[in-house]
Amino acid sequence: MKTRIISGLVIAPLLILVLLGGPWIKGAVFIITVLGLYEFYRGFHNMDVHPSYPIGIVSVCLLYFINIITFYVHPFTPGMTPYLYMMWLFISVLICLLYMFKIEERNLSDAMATITGIVYVGFFPYHAALAEDTFAVLCGVSPVWLILITAFCTDIFAYFGGYFLGKHKLCPKISPKKTIEGSICGTLASTVFCAAFGYAFMDREYMLAFILTGLAGGIFSQFGDLTASIFKRKMGIKDYGNLIPGHGGIMDRFDSVIFTAPMIFYILMIFFADKL
Amino acid sequence: MKTRIISGLVIAPLLILVLLGGPWIKGAVFIITVLGLYEFYRGFHNMDVHPSYPIGIVSVCLLYFINIITFYVHPFTPGMTPYLYMMWLFISVLICLLYMFKIEERNLSDAMATITGIVYVGFFPYHAALAEDTFAVLCGVSPVWLILITAFCTDIFAYFGGYFLGKHKLCPKISPKKTIEGSICGTLASTVFCAAFGYAFMDREYMLAFILTGLAGGIFSQFGDLTASIFKRKMGIKDYGNLIPGHGGIMDRFDSVIFTAPMIFYILMIFFADKL
Repeated sequence: MKTRIISGLVIAPLLILVLLGGPWIKGAVFIITVLGLYEFYRGFHNMDVHPSYPIGIVSVCLLYFINIITFYVHPFTPGMTPYLYMMWLFISVLICLLYMFKIEERNLSDAMATITGIVYVGFFPYHAALAEDTFAVLCGVSPVWLILITAFCTDIFAYFGGYFLGKHKLCPKISPKKTIEGSICGTLASTVFCAAFGYAFMDREYMLAFILTGLAGGIFSQFGDLTASIFKRKMGIKDYGNLIPGHGGIMDRFDSVIFTAPMIFYILMIFFADKL
Repeated sequence: MKTRIISGLVIAPLLILVLLGGPWIKGAVFIITVLGLYEFYRGFHNMDVHPSYPIGIVSVCLLYFINIITFYVHPFTPGMTPYLYMMWLFISVLICLLYMFKIEERNLSDAMATITGIVYVGFFPYHAALAEDTFAVLCGVSPVWLILITAFCTDIFAYFGGYFLGKHKLCPKISPKKTIEGSICGTLASTVFCAAFGYAFMDREYMLAFILTGLAGGIFSQFGDLTASIFKRKMGIKDYGNLIPGHGGIMDRFDSVIFTAPMIFYILMIFFADKL
């Protein structure tokens, strides 16, 4: 319970940044990503796997540098910008592979963990920044609200739903406290709150998009949470970090956002395809 | 020497497919990719790492399915298509991570190797198909010629250059036979042949692009070759496969194309940016 309240206190200043919008949101996502990547890579040490911090962090910086260039300095043609992200992926993965050239010191797992971190912790949450750039004007308000609402409503309602109604374990081997009842409550709450938010603040023509966003986001924020649990179990750690003493690190707080950000970005992209 | 000649015999029918162009090239790249991915994943078995064949192969199929849809069935707006590739990456990596949900049977390395294979063996060579779609009309001939010329000229001239002039080892720990002299000969040959091909068959206004293509392609085809050697050393195998008995598999023949395809695609993209 206390963790949930403390999470809330961490999230509160974030809400102000989302209200400020644009560069504030992107700056926040950038900082969270860099800290999260650091925690993720550090988690591998127990397994004697040593991803490259410099490659991972420079790669994330490059991703946001592309954002700054294409959004503020020199807008390319619409067909060009996403290719820059593909080029970014190519260069990042290439450098991770070249990292193995010190063949006596480094292993395949070091390179593969670096790549996984770049895509999972770097590229996935970056979709929150992409969503802000692409849909903020079309939606009238920041679509990052949807990402946060779905991630945190699911988390809170799954907790209380499980607390009051929970009878059947969801997947005891990965996360022993989660229940099927809690999971359903979380997903329903996410759907209802996203739909309500869309109805109140966004274009009602796209209600179906907001309902689907809430539903898929509710399901995948739980997958995000469980995926992080799997990583931690395999790494042999309890929490990714210790940012709030006793209450985990950045990655523990944002594990579900990692999956909901791209999920919601692509759902909105499909619905708004004709307006892009 | 015999390996080189046999390689040539494998490549010869490919040249006919490149002449036929369009779907023939893409079909060939698809088949090579699927076989290559199979070999790559199999290589991990020695290390007790077990990537998911079905996820990797379905992911590659999905990539070419997107190509068919966007190129032949329903062309989206230019801004939309590359986002489909980003969505593909998200879905593929997501499924690789969910693969770990059978937490007792599967390890982080299984998921990370699956991801690495999808990006390195699946997505990288796919740029040959992308280059064909994007630049065949602009260039007048298939840009896949440049990818093949650079990869195979480098390979052949590095071999003969090293054979006749080789004195200094390039990186004995990774590949004991390679020499600095051979490497320089290969890079120069790649530059000269790409420039000559561009001069003879393509728009001479873009000569600088073809020279750079040859130069960067020459360097990175060697990195591709060495990267494959590192994987094989770490996996504890001599060759990836046994397609031509005694002369290695698909991945042994195409290891340099994996890096040159995206390299050349992005160089052309930068030079032709204003025409896209």
